[in-house]
Amino acid sequence: MAKILTLSSGKGPLRHGDENLGRIIFLGVTEQMENFNFYAPTKMLFGRGKVTELPQEMKPFGSRVLLVYGGGSIKKNGIYDTVAGLLRKEGFALFELGGVTPNPRIEAVRCGVSLAWENHVDMVLAVGGGSAVDCAKAIAAGACYEGDPWELVKDAAKIRTALPVFTVLTMSATGSEMNPTAVISNPETKEKQGVHSGFLYPKASVLDPTYLYTLPAGQTAAGVADIMSHIFEGYFKRTEDAYVQDKFAEGILKACIKWGPVALTEPEDYSARANIMWAASMALNGLCGCGKAGKWSCHAMGHQLGAYYDITHGVALAIVTPAWMRYILSEDTVDKFVDYAVNVWGFPRETDRFALANMGIDATEQFFLDCGLPSRLSELGIDDSDFEAMAKAAVPYADLDTQAYVPLHEEDVVNIYRACL
Amino acid sequence: MAKILTLSSGKGPLRHGDENLGRIIFLGVTEQMENFNFYAPTKMLFGRGKVTELPQEMKPFGSRVLLVYGGGSIKKNGIYDTVAGLLRKEGFALFELGGVTPNPRIEAVRCGVSLAWENHVDMVLAVGGGSAVDCAKAIAAGACYEGDPWELVKDAAKIRTALPVFTVLTMSATGSEMNPTAVISNPETKEKQGVHSGFLYPKASVLDPTYLYTLPAGQTAAGVADIMSHIFEGYFKRTEDAYVQDKFAEGILKACIKWGPVALTEPEDYSARANIMWAASMALNGLCGCGKAGKWSCHAMGHQLGAYYDITHGVALAIVTPAWMRYILSEDTVDKFVDYAVNVWGFPRETDRFALANMGIDATEQFFLDCGLPSRLSELGIDDSDFEAMAKAAVPYADLDTQAYVPLHEEDVVNIYRACL
Repeated sequence: MAKILTLSSGKGPLRHGDENLGRIIFLGVTEQMENFNFYAPTKMLFGRGKVTELPQEMKPFGSRVLLVYGGGSIKKNGIYDTVAGLLRKEGFALFELGGVTPNPRIEAVRCGVSLAWENHVDMVLAVGGGSAVDCAKAIAAGACYEGDPWELVKDAAKIRTALPVFTVLTMSATGSEMNPTAVISNPETKEKQGVHSGFLYPKASVLDPTYLYTLPAGQTAAGVADIMSHIFEGYFKRTEDAYVQDKFAEGILKACIKWGPVALTEPEDYSARANIMWAASMALNGLCGCGKAGKWSCHAMGHQLGAYYDITHGVALAIVTPAWMRYILSEDTVDKFVDYAVNVWGFPRETDRFALANMGIDATEQFFLDCGLPSRLSELGIDDSDFEAMAKAAVPYADLDTQAYVPLHEEDVVNIYRACL
Repeated sequence: MAKILTLSSGKGPLRHGDENLGRIIFLGVTEQMENFNFYAPTKMLFGRGKVTELPQEMKPFGSRVLLVYGGGSIKKNGIYDTVAGLLRKEGFALFELGGVTPNPRIEAVRCGVSLAWENHVDMVLAVGGGSAVDCAKAIAAGACYEGDPWELVKDAAKIRTALPVFTVLTMSATGSEMNPTAVISNPETKEKQGVHSGFLYPKASVLDPTYLYTLPAGQTAAGVADIMSHIFEGYFKRTEDAYVQDKFAEGILKACIKWGPVALTEPEDYSARANIMWAASMALNGLCGCGKAGKWSCHAMGHQLGAYYDITHGVALAIVTPAWMRYILSEDTVDKFVDYAVNVWGFPRETDRFALANMGIDATEQFFLDCGLPSRLSELGIDDSDFEAMAKAAVPYADLDTQAYVPLHEEDVVNIYRACL
């Protein structure tokens, strides 16, 4: 459908400042938007105190609720009491799966499915961040499936229905509250896998910016990095004319750059929390990526770091992204990086193209540093011993060798990991 | 909920360059986003040939379809045959209401309701622009109501259910394909009224940019003006911190400015048609206006022109908007106009604030002119004889005296109409 404009032969200077020229072949840009479906049917209840509207959204679906949450923070900050109190008052029966970890594990999903079956729950309510939401989605699907839920994660086509899912967000990052995706880890097989199914859209999500006030700075920063990475993955793609989408993407990046530091220094700044919270949902509900060809790069590499070392998702992305940007910068991609430097960071377009591109990349790296995020894998005690195994897993995870913005083979992924040491 | 920051006393220079100072009182900006719901559950099927996916979206809802369309253009350009052929092949029974006019009238709705009843239709499919879609929505609600459908237009609370609505767009402007609104005119009472109901969201909408290739230039231009007006109405509001929304708004305006002229000079430019088509849906699905306080100004004034003179909606907006902008420019609003001039039109921020604001307004007016749109009411043969009656209707239509960005009384509306002569 899409018209191919250019196809680099691999003879030109494909990568700038890299001795390994000629190995990576840029597949060329596509001139016209790809066909797409946009569908985001989750009702978003946004603002202070909006949780009070949640019971009326849930009532049509029954009265028995599995509450899924993570560590104890929602009990400390009162959100648990608020939600449980509201629901009990309205006659809901609550059952609980607490202790869901970051990078939620298939074992937690299995526990949740058992609880759902034992208690005949009608719906699943996540109270937490992306991990609780993803776990709740997998439970909702698993509760309607006779086999092991890991089979559903590995093959979304097996999901034929799911319990209704609702969410109350206490951390903004993954966008899971408004999309049909769950990412689940399997420590036994060292796999971290995303599953997409139209049955997994939350029915309604409560986004109350004041619920982010008590979020630790490290989590706020990692969340901002995750949001920005979702945008980068869609922004740096081969489709050239998805102008509306790219303007939305630039706007969300600017929102992160403007409001992220405010949220870090003034954790109770409503405007900062509200903008970051809304940006997170908008970054991964399909708005910015629709109509653009190809698959994501940094998440494939970051997910392996999560699967191998259980490091925070947003931290992995903050480390990998600038290294990836430098690695793929070339004559073929420089114009897109110039757009990024000019439209997002406000650098003057008159500068030399490659200098400008590097200014944008440097600014990205410095921004993550200024947010207090680690910039090196070595800071996290990670050395190169698993790089080859991780690269071997990363490439097929997202068909990086054929579907990435700039195709990456195992060797390239290892090189990028090395640049992160 | 929202914190009020400033409340102008009316003593300062409230309007710049206007002798009628002191009458208009700016209500002050609100520092924090308003609470809101965002809900846009329509499945958008976007791209070349996507109409082939429509029958499978419709099947779950039955087999008897009322087809609603406007003039003969869909029969000339083959879209009618494509849609009807696809549906008949899949076993749907089709009934038809053709000849729906721009500014669709309650009489057409009544005809459609009769057809729906007589033929026991299960759903309504609009093939056309905003007029066909709005008419289809009103029919879908009217078919489930015992009284006269004008009662539903006047009081949306009376809509308790509606037939499922589907749309195939052949003109992009109103955004009706992705929202719960219909605007219906009643020539007898000279009313043009919008009705909003959660039952009116289309289930699915087909957006094929190639369907716009045969659109006359005048309709393309009026559509672009309508899209831009939808953005202006949300952008110029009293809420200051809805940053993500404002960046989306600026992006859509830039898309119109970049791609509108391309669509006018190269009607078969896919990228131009695709961006305008997507911009139209995004401009009025709630994304850009959510969380912002107040009601719209120019549509209230433009709707009266439609009700009194049956002029094209987008043309009315293109005429009224620059005059409204000049009228409300003041010390209180100048900073927002500066943002507009800088972020949308790219003028350098260093210029004097009021000069910059006026450069943005001039550029807006010139853009509409360059698109070939009329800029004066007198060009359409309209004089001032109905201005007072129209102003009397416009103010309560959107509570302009209390809820507009800058409150407008009847006298102000007359002044703005006069400035359009």
